[in-house]
Amino acid sequence: MGLSFEVSAESSGGGRRGVLQLPHGVVQTPVFMPVGTAATVKTVQQETLEEIGADGAGAGIILANTYHLYLRPGHELIQRMGGLHRFMSWRRPMLTDSGGFQVFSLAGLRKVTDDGVEFRSHLDGSKHFFSPEHSMAVQIALGADIMMAFDECVETPASWERTSQSMGLTHAWAARSKAYFDAHKHEAPWTAEFGGTQSLFGIVQGGMYADLRRESAERLVEMDFDGYAIGGLAVGEPREVTREMIARSLEILPRDKPRYVMGVGYPDEIEEYARTGVDMMDCVLPTRAARHGLLFRSAEAGETGPAVRMNIKRVEYAEDRRPIDATCACMVCKRYTRAYLRHLFVAKEPLGATLNSIHNLAFYLDTMRRVRDGLAKGDSVNPPGG
Amino acid sequence: MGLSFEVSAESSGGGRRGVLQLPHGVVQTPVFMPVGTAATVKTVQQETLEEIGADGAGAGIILANTYHLYLRPGHELIQRMGGLHRFMSWRRPMLTDSGGFQVFSLAGLRKVTDDGVEFRSHLDGSKHFFSPEHSMAVQIALGADIMMAFDECVETPASWERTSQSMGLTHAWAARSKAYFDAHKHEAPWTAEFGGTQSLFGIVQGGMYADLRRESAERLVEMDFDGYAIGGLAVGEPREVTREMIARSLEILPRDKPRYVMGVGYPDEIEEYARTGVDMMDCVLPTRAARHGLLFRSAEAGETGPAVRMNIKRVEYAEDRRPIDATCACMVCKRYTRAYLRHLFVAKEPLGATLNSIHNLAFYLDTMRRVRDGLAKGDSVNPPGG
Repeated sequence: MGLSFEVSAESSGGGRRGVLQLPHGVVQTPVFMPVGTAATVKTVQQETLEEIGADGAGAGIILANTYHLYLRPGHELIQRMGGLHRFMSWRRPMLTDSGGFQVFSLAGLRKVTDDGVEFRSHLDGSKHFFSPEHSMAVQIALGADIMMAFDECVETPASWERTSQSMGLTHAWAARSKAYFDAHKHEAPWTAEFGGTQSLFGIVQGGMYADLRRESAERLVEMDFDGYAIGGLAVGEPREVTREMIARSLEILPRDKPRYVMGVGYPDEIEEYARTGVDMMDCVLPTRAARHGLLFRSAEAGETGPAVRMNIKRVEYAEDRRPIDATCACMVCKRYTRAYLRHLFVAKEPLGATLNSIHNLAFYLDTMRRVRDGLAKGDSVNPPGG
Repeated sequence: MGLSFEVSAESSGGGRRGVLQLPHGVVQTPVFMPVGTAATVKTVQQETLEEIGADGAGAGIILANTYHLYLRPGHELIQRMGGLHRFMSWRRPMLTDSGGFQVFSLAGLRKVTDDGVEFRSHLDGSKHFFSPEHSMAVQIALGADIMMAFDECVETPASWERTSQSMGLTHAWAARSKAYFDAHKHEAPWTAEFGGTQSLFGIVQGGMYADLRRESAERLVEMDFDGYAIGGLAVGEPREVTREMIARSLEILPRDKPRYVMGVGYPDEIEEYARTGVDMMDCVLPTRAARHGLLFRSAEAGETGPAVRMNIKRVEYAEDRRPIDATCACMVCKRYTRAYLRHLFVAKEPLGATLNSIHNLAFYLDTMRRVRDGLAKGDSVNPPGG
């Protein structure tokens, strides 16, 4: 079996408190997934990821990037090492993307046909080809609990016609992804030893067109995936458009399957989308921002909004003895001052990126825990089936 | 009071098992001190430093560099923040160097007079002046448990005449350092609150000349420092010369005071010097080597020597499922394979430097613990006063 998903409470706004059971463990949803691009959440130890957050529960599931791992160290090497979990010593659930998003970001380095995408490595310029079948084979070798169908990500902006055509390709590729997956899903590096199989999610596309989003969701649901992602968002469009595209897709997606919005976002975004029925999200923002000195914290007296952004390099923090966030229970806020973190950043000391990343990830995980607690308690006015 | 030092056992070779009591805690000697140049042991969290090593005891004392902290963030800022311990959240003992070694490494950027050294910052070219008195004032502002007299480090190679002249300057500066320190030693950022004072070590110079080393040790002992360092070694000379210069200095230095050899060395060196009576050592090697992928491990069957060097980037480790060192109990060896560490290094992932540093520091601390255990047990054939 791949996954089971149970929604235990649902709010009037559509938010769902759920439990996602995967071969490598249980994930409490809604969940934020830290991104471990190259089999490492940049600058953070696995030990730390396991205990990050106010409740000490750590990250329930992390993501890794198929494109990066395919190029280096190579999916076959990882397969020989027993799969991604063993390779990086991460015992909890993982998810891999399809490689599509990265490949389509290689402007000028790729050529798309109906069959797949030819591209050149950003590392050494070598030529490679990804088809839906090949993406599946690579993801099976990596062996994440959840893998993603191979999709085309249309450029932004794109006309309705262009977006519709691209969406059609995504649907054809989704069907091919699923066919390959169904024939090979027992070949994960750990299936023989531990039992269980990987799961496959389809990806809703349709750009910034509500009718296409609905159509895409309908076509994918007909194919019956284990879960559904909403892709191609947070690529520069206004927040209202992101919100609208998510809402149109959620209307169609089945309530008994997990729903995943890819690549979002700021803390207030992940909170908002979770409250409207998104179960899973991922984003490089907490770790990438951390490496650039951008930290997230709770609003203090006189400030508005659920999350405040602070740039730790500003001179106003040079002698600030307070933690990043007085209400945060993470190991960084319990021990280090803004003054010290500013010093590390200004002196380009690598410890700065580590401590900043730990705090930002804790802030994201705590945000989701708060949303989950709310959905389980007071926010739950419409239990499923009720 | 600054420090107390008790030798509990001494070997026939001169090695001493001791306990060094400092205002911020107790240090078991012989001890290796990780270097925290800019108020951070590069890439390693303070939490980790507190528990590193097979016995989970962590680093007993760490070092920070006066020159770097003087320039950035500035000693006055650190003083206002309550001193270095508070600034970086390190509760255990610390030691600062005098700034001399770094200043004298700024070839072409410095000018030496009897009064002190004028130099230009490597960061922005700004002009600065360090005298013995100023080095003391800066180190008092930083507030380490142990501070070092301001000394001149002679270039290598240098003639006997040049070395003798430079040594004379070091002695004059040592006397001035001590006079300033004695008048101001109660001004550490924490003395008013917690009691206790800093301690000051003199530095034996004399280049590669045994007679000068002896003379330098004699002059410094007359000045009655809290402890004695042996400086100006491991600057490119053959190991036999280092060994000889240390031995000649140790003959003169009092047995009831701690003895510190600065800036050495490889694991077999620190072990050798500890067995001949050196109580304290520091070196950037374990952390700097780690960032370049050079790891230290125990010898395996068929290998010779107490420590083996391995370069983790070599292709032979690409699929090596073993830990760095099968006999090492550090958190890295307990969890991660050579294959994963190689991947992190090749992919230039920052986690690689962190994990490599943790292991190398554990290897150094474990080496010293082994020496201490030996001195306390079987190696002790000549207890002090016996």
